[in-house]
Amino acid sequence: MRSRVELLLMETQARVCRALAQLDGAAAFSVDSWERQEGGGGISCVLQDGNIFEKAGVNVSVVFGHLSEEAAQQMRSRGKTLKTKDGSKQWWFGGGTDLTPTYLNQEDAVHFHKTLKEACDKYGPELYPKYKKWCDNYFYIKHRGERRGIGGIFFDDLDSPSKEEVFQFVQSCAEAIVPCYIPIVKKHCHDSFSPEEKLWQQLRRGRYVEFNLVYDRGTKFGLATPGSRIESILMSLPLTARWEYMHSPPENSKEAEILEVLRNPKDWVH
Amino acid sequence: MRSRVELLLMETQARVCRALAQLDGAAAFSVDSWERQEGGGGISCVLQDGNIFEKAGVNVSVVFGHLSEEAAQQMRSRGKTLKTKDGSKQWWFGGGTDLTPTYLNQEDAVHFHKTLKEACDKYGPELYPKYKKWCDNYFYIKHRGERRGIGGIFFDDLDSPSKEEVFQFVQSCAEAIVPCYIPIVKKHCHDSFSPEEKLWQQLRRGRYVEFNLVYDRGTKFGLATPGSRIESILMSLPLTARWEYMHSPPENSKEAEILEVLRNPKDWVH
Repeated sequence: MRSRVELLLMETQARVCRALAQLDGAAAFSVDSWERQEGGGGISCVLQDGNIFEKAGVNVSVVFGHLSEEAAQQMRSRGKTLKTKDGSKQWWFGGGTDLTPTYLNQEDAVHFHKTLKEACDKYGPELYPKYKKWCDNYFYIKHRGERRGIGGIFFDDLDSPSKEEVFQFVQSCAEAIVPCYIPIVKKHCHDSFSPEEKLWQQLRRGRYVEFNLVYDRGTKFGLATPGSRIESILMSLPLTARWEYMHSPPENSKEAEILEVLRNPKDWVH
Repeated sequence: MRSRVELLLMETQARVCRALAQLDGAAAFSVDSWERQEGGGGISCVLQDGNIFEKAGVNVSVVFGHLSEEAAQQMRSRGKTLKTKDGSKQWWFGGGTDLTPTYLNQEDAVHFHKTLKEACDKYGPELYPKYKKWCDNYFYIKHRGERRGIGGIFFDDLDSPSKEEVFQFVQSCAEAIVPCYIPIVKKHCHDSFSPEEKLWQQLRRGRYVEFNLVYDRGTKFGLATPGSRIESILMSLPLTARWEYMHSPPENSKEAEILEVLRNPKDWVH
């Protein structure tokens, strides 16, 4: 199973990179393979200064070997240990995909969530609502009372009904990434924007940084894992971001519209 | 003693604000007083979009009342509890001041540290070296193997020899802030800079954000304190910052020069 998972991840990485690079037209992904002395390694694909994308990153890491006490603690706090008392290995799947737009586009939000729902529904009608809610709860910037974006699906600790079934479900979700995201970029990549809109984007990216550095479990786990590759862990930070003291958008503005959704997540599909 | 400390903090805040606003010439500080429902409050002074300063913040917070379990944990992990077993109150002083330049200027670094050393030396020759080292250890971005800046002094848990003596020492340090910093700004505020230098500044500010959101105990304590004012806690984040994948300055460049000092702190005064 481990090699099937690795293969799925690498196929997904290649598929996403291909789709993004084709769309961008200008820049190509730089590909860095790296090995971890303590066990494992990864492939980091980053596109910078493209036609459309300022920065796009697609990472795969495979980490094995001994965990630091801090990283093991991160696991235990989630009710997981890598070796159970009877010596057998534990397994589980985690994953997710979500969207963090600067402004709300109702149609895009529905498209994104609908595509994910379809990928989930094949494995049970209860899955999409459950993982959609999990996502809204996960990408929560507690100190702001806001979510990072308009959500998607997220699941951390899937270990039932069986390895095979969870794998199939994860594969279905992985295959949804390109059809979720690419049509939205295609639709908007030639839209113009004003300096005020760019500024709001920069402020929202500041919130993205706050989430990733203060709360994200993946970042925390990476920073706590000895020998991890820091450039790969922090690759998802935006090219540029901005913080303004006491910024608050005017009522009834487009900025207030998305803030409302970030504060009170909506159901995009029923 | 509590009111003497509060008075010292507010005097220092006023003195620093006055010096910065006078130097800037254009923008004035906006002053926000706020109260905390759970006890205490503060004054946040922020100057934005000035002649010289993009963003300058000078904060005082006075927090009392019940601590959240998370905030109390932050205290206990440092060997402190607010109430001792015999019911008496515990007290200690913490503080510090440091400099985070984009490029190294030897003369400025020496001026900054020499001024701090003089403020410390009146209270014992062992203090400056001890708190200089504490500062280098504190402002350490572990995942980068770099310090945030060229240091200064830092002390967390001073409780000897006596309340009165520690207060005098802290006062002496507080009075050093303006003469440490203002002459450096005066000297350089009309220097020109290239787009490449601006870019390096933005990248260094990214590291500043990483330190403050991942490691800074003040930020962590603030985020864990119920009813704390988030805009005041995160006011120290830069107006703008930047992250580039795998950025590495060329050998023998000015960028490499400061990186060397951030990786291997120097003694600026003997």
